[in-house]
Amino acid sequence: MKDKIIVAVDAMGGDNAPAEIVKGAVLAVNSSDNIYVVLLGNEEAVGSELAKYTYNKEKISVKNTTEVIETGEPPVMAIKKKKDSSLVAGMHMVKEGNADAIVSAGSSGAILVGGQVIVGRIKGVERPPLAPLIPTLKGVSLLVDCGANVDARASHLVQFARMGSIYMEHVMGVKNPKVAIVNIGVEEEKGNQLVKETYPLLKNCADINFVGSIEARDIPNGDVDVIVCEAFVGNVILKLYEGVGAALIQKVKQGMMTSFRSKIGALLVKPALKETLKSFDASEYGGAPLIGLNGLVVKTHGNSSSKEVCAAIRQCATFMEQEINEKIKEMLN
Amino acid sequence: MKDKIIVAVDAMGGDNAPAEIVKGAVLAVNSSDNIYVVLLGNEEAVGSELAKYTYNKEKISVKNTTEVIETGEPPVMAIKKKKDSSLVAGMHMVKEGNADAIVSAGSSGAILVGGQVIVGRIKGVERPPLAPLIPTLKGVSLLVDCGANVDARASHLVQFARMGSIYMEHVMGVKNPKVAIVNIGVEEEKGNQLVKETYPLLKNCADINFVGSIEARDIPNGDVDVIVCEAFVGNVILKLYEGVGAALIQKVKQGMMTSFRSKIGALLVKPALKETLKSFDASEYGGAPLIGLNGLVVKTHGNSSSKEVCAAIRQCATFMEQEINEKIKEMLN
Repeated sequence: MKDKIIVAVDAMGGDNAPAEIVKGAVLAVNSSDNIYVVLLGNEEAVGSELAKYTYNKEKISVKNTTEVIETGEPPVMAIKKKKDSSLVAGMHMVKEGNADAIVSAGSSGAILVGGQVIVGRIKGVERPPLAPLIPTLKGVSLLVDCGANVDARASHLVQFARMGSIYMEHVMGVKNPKVAIVNIGVEEEKGNQLVKETYPLLKNCADINFVGSIEARDIPNGDVDVIVCEAFVGNVILKLYEGVGAALIQKVKQGMMTSFRSKIGALLVKPALKETLKSFDASEYGGAPLIGLNGLVVKTHGNSSSKEVCAAIRQCATFMEQEINEKIKEMLN
Repeated sequence: MKDKIIVAVDAMGGDNAPAEIVKGAVLAVNSSDNIYVVLLGNEEAVGSELAKYTYNKEKISVKNTTEVIETGEPPVMAIKKKKDSSLVAGMHMVKEGNADAIVSAGSSGAILVGGQVIVGRIKGVERPPLAPLIPTLKGVSLLVDCGANVDARASHLVQFARMGSIYMEHVMGVKNPKVAIVNIGVEEEKGNQLVKETYPLLKNCADINFVGSIEARDIPNGDVDVIVCEAFVGNVILKLYEGVGAALIQKVKQGMMTSFRSKIGALLVKPALKETLKSFDASEYGGAPLIGLNGLVVKTHGNSSSKEVCAAIRQCATFMEQEINEKIKEMLN
C-alpha cells in the first residue's frame, strides 16, 4: 500500500457543493490511512463546513480559489479564462505532481476539456474516454466512452477496450473481464461503418477477452464487463438508463396509488423497494474516470452526495495503488 | 371512409405464427367494416387456425405460400431466393396494387430490405425510416429512424423529421407535433458532426414544429412527439428502453420478496402494478411503419400477440384513410 495518496477535490462543483463535497472528503480520509485530500474552493465556505467534522487535521488541507466554473459555460473558454477556479487549480495540482488525482462534480464539459488540455494524455493514448460504471442485474459494467470523444475512429475504440479492461480488472477486481462492442445485432456483419471496422480489430486484440457484439437490450443483464462504444452512443445509453429508470419508478408509484388495496400494499413494500431500486440507479455510481491521462481525473454526478464523493476519492486511491497508468503505459509498448 | 382497405398479413412471421397472427387478423376484420385481410402462409396451417373463429368469410382470404424466411437468414439473399415466402409474396401484392399494406412480425432485416427492394420508395424519398412508437409518461412518441438506415446523412434526417411529423399528425392525431433531434446536450453547438449539420436544417424547416435537441434522459418524459435520430442510435434507444424496463421490473419483483412485510404488500399491489407497467412496455406498441414507400410496410414485434397484430392492421387502415403517402408526395413537391 502506498503511504500517501493525495486527491485534489473540487469543493465548488456540483449541486450540493460545498457541503456534501466536504463531508465526502472527511468520510474518505477517515476511511483509509493513506488518503489525503486538498479541498479547492472558497476558504471560508469550505472551512466552516470542515469545522463540523472530526478528522485528522494533517490529512485535509484547503487551497483557496476565487472562481467557479458554472455548468452552462462554454468549456474551452472557461478553462482558459478562469485560471483561479477550483477546477482549473486542482487540475494544475495533478499536472504538477502536487496531487495524484482530482475529483469534481462540476461541469462535465470543463472536466473533459481540462483533463485533456491541462492534465494531458499519456503518450500514445489517442483519446482519453470517460468511463462510468453502470448498474446491471449482476453488479456493474464499465461503459466506455460515454461522452468524451464524439465521432471517434476504430483505433480509438480499440484503446477504449484495452484501457477499460485494465480498469475493470485492477480497480474493480474482475478477472479477465469480458469486452463487447455495442451493436444493432449480434452477427459479425451487422453494424454501422465504425462498428464494422472496429469489430475485427477487437477480435484480433490479444490482450482483451473480446466476446463480440452486445445489443442495447442486453446491457442491463450484466453479462459483459466492459461495454465499448462511440461517445455519442455511450452518452445516449447512460442518460436513457437514468431516464427510463426514473420514468418507470414514477409509473410504479402511480400504479400503487390506483386502488385502496394497492395503497395498503404500497406502504408495506416501500422500504424494501426503495433499497432495491437504488441499486439500479446509474447516478449512484457517480465516479467516472477519464482514462489515459497523466494522472487521474474523476467526474462524479452533478448531484453527488457525500457518499458518492467519498466513493470517488477511494476509487482514486485504488487506481493509484494498482498503478493503472503504469499498466496502460506497458500496454502501449 | 374508404370502402375497402386490403392488408396482406405474413401469417408465418414471428414467434407466435401462425396462431396469434391469424387471431389478430380476425380481430381486425371484425373491428371495422372496411378492413380486408389476405393471410399469406401454409394454407393448411392457416386454415385450421381460421376455422376456430367467426368472421365474415368475404373479408379474409388465404394465399398459399411454400417458403418461410427465418430470423437468422441474411436478408438480401433471403429476399432474392425465397420468392414463394409469405413475406416476399405479400410484398409483391403491395407492389402490384393487390394489397394496400403488409404487416409482418418476421425477420426485421428481410422486412427492411424487402420494403425497399420490392415495394420501393416514393420518388424523392432518399431513405425510408423505420418508425416505432415508444411509450412515454404522457403517451407515445415516434422514434425515427430506429434501424433502417445506419450512417444516414443530414438530408435523410430532415426527411425523417418531416415524414414523422405527417405520421404523428394524421395517423396518431397529434396537432402540430413537436419534433426534436437526439443529442448529448441541449445547446445548439453540442453534438457529433451529423447532429451539428442536421440541426440548422431542421431549424429552417418551415413545415415542422422543431423544438431543438433532446437528451436521451428526457425521452421517456414524453414532451416531444417526433424524436429524430440516426438508425444506430435509434436502435440503441429502442432496445435499451426494453432492456432497462425488463431489468427494473425484475428488480421490483426482487425488492418485493426481501421481507415478510414486503411479500404481503406485493400481493396487494401486484394487479394494479402489472397494468401500469404494461403501458410502459415498448414491445406493446408493436406496429412500426417503414415510412416513405409506395404502399405501406409495417413491422410488428417478433413476439406480437393477436392484440398487437390487430392494432398494426388497424394502423394500416388509418394510414390509408388519412392518405399519408399522398401527403408525403405533396411535401416533396
